[in-house]
Amino acid sequence: MTDRRIHKNKIKFHKDAFDKTSEERRNSVLSIALGEFASKGYSATSINDIARDAGVSIGAMYSYFASKEDLFLTIVNEGHFLMVEILSAIGENSSDVFDCVKKMITSSRTFALEHTLLNQIYLDLTTQALSPLAVRLSSELEQVTPVLLSSIIDKAKAEGLVSEHVDAKMASFCIDNILMIYQFSFSSDYYKERMRMYLGDEELTDIEKVEAKMMQFIKRAILL
Amino acid sequence: MTDRRIHKNKIKFHKDAFDKTSEERRNSVLSIALGEFASKGYSATSINDIARDAGVSIGAMYSYFASKEDLFLTIVNEGHFLMVEILSAIGENSSDVFDCVKKMITSSRTFALEHTLLNQIYLDLTTQALSPLAVRLSSELEQVTPVLLSSIIDKAKAEGLVSEHVDAKMASFCIDNILMIYQFSFSSDYYKERMRMYLGDEELTDIEKVEAKMMQFIKRAILL
Repeated sequence: MTDRRIHKNKIKFHKDAFDKTSEERRNSVLSIALGEFASKGYSATSINDIARDAGVSIGAMYSYFASKEDLFLTIVNEGHFLMVEILSAIGENSSDVFDCVKKMITSSRTFALEHTLLNQIYLDLTTQALSPLAVRLSSELEQVTPVLLSSIIDKAKAEGLVSEHVDAKMASFCIDNILMIYQFSFSSDYYKERMRMYLGDEELTDIEKVEAKMMQFIKRAILL
Repeated sequence: MTDRRIHKNKIKFHKDAFDKTSEERRNSVLSIALGEFASKGYSATSINDIARDAGVSIGAMYSYFASKEDLFLTIVNEGHFLMVEILSAIGENSSDVFDCVKKMITSSRTFALEHTLLNQIYLDLTTQALSPLAVRLSSELEQVTPVLLSSIIDKAKAEGLVSEHVDAKMASFCIDNILMIYQFSFSSDYYKERMRMYLGDEELTDIEKVEAKMMQFIKRAILL
């Protein structure tokens, strides 16, 4: 039900003409744009270069997207939506808060590895220069993680799994801070190197152990 | 002693001519560059615009910095160094690990508020597009937080303040992930809005309470 509601309210940044063109052309434009935005960053990327590399005329490109900003947000929005679908599925298929967090830790890594370019674009979006773009995104999508985490912690408190002294909102914020940077640690070279400095090369050869330790830290923080 | 060692090994990204010019001119160039890089991001900033706004000829500018990259890294390096000095002082003046983390939480916020532009530039640096620049920074400076946190946690374990089951490296990584995003939450509009979604407007009117709750989360995670 959550999914349907999100679909219904999904914000669209492309023009109708883009829906009407061939799937092959849509995929070509989006994958070229994804690669360019991820490697060069939003500002250094030219929509004209993307059109040329995708074999699309400038005129056609502007019939699909009003601006470079709208093309960028189309990609961000898809990525955002994909992440929310994964999170919603985790929320629905978890036995308790600990199972949920454990699955979120693993999916932070697998999402970053499977969708590295999307993740790099998302990191770019958090910078101050792109804040005028970020405000155009759906705040409903942004709310998914805070709501999922705090409601699952509140539920666990009621069931006596989590200590009544735990503040659900603060715990959600801290847990997602840990996970967000863990996710970036598999998609941005800067964060990758930072994680290596914290954990060391040897430790990182056994990623299941790393994630078990991360789970242990979070579990101790909220456990009864 | 730590400070002296860092000073000695401090990497320099500007040319000698920049040291020899007047302090007024140095400050003017750096403050204009700081504002431009922070608001527009690295890629969208032009070194020619900075020279013009600072009232410096392009020729003089290139006698100070070999490239826009070097000017950018000069600023990042100063900010980095400032943060390390604050952290080293906290490390030296803390009674125990809990006092240290408490001071680090507060200084994450005050540093972001006092040096908002520096913080925005630092966030830009973590993006994938700027990874070739990030690798030129001192890895010695980058090591300061991991080493400070893990050594203070190891010490607390030996003293029986922190549980022997706590993995010092993982705890340091998780704590700094929490603090890093908390810091960005006072300098980037994106993270500011994200924190508002997690904690709510009302909660954020009492920042000491917010920080006490964050401390509580971390304390529970590592306490005996």
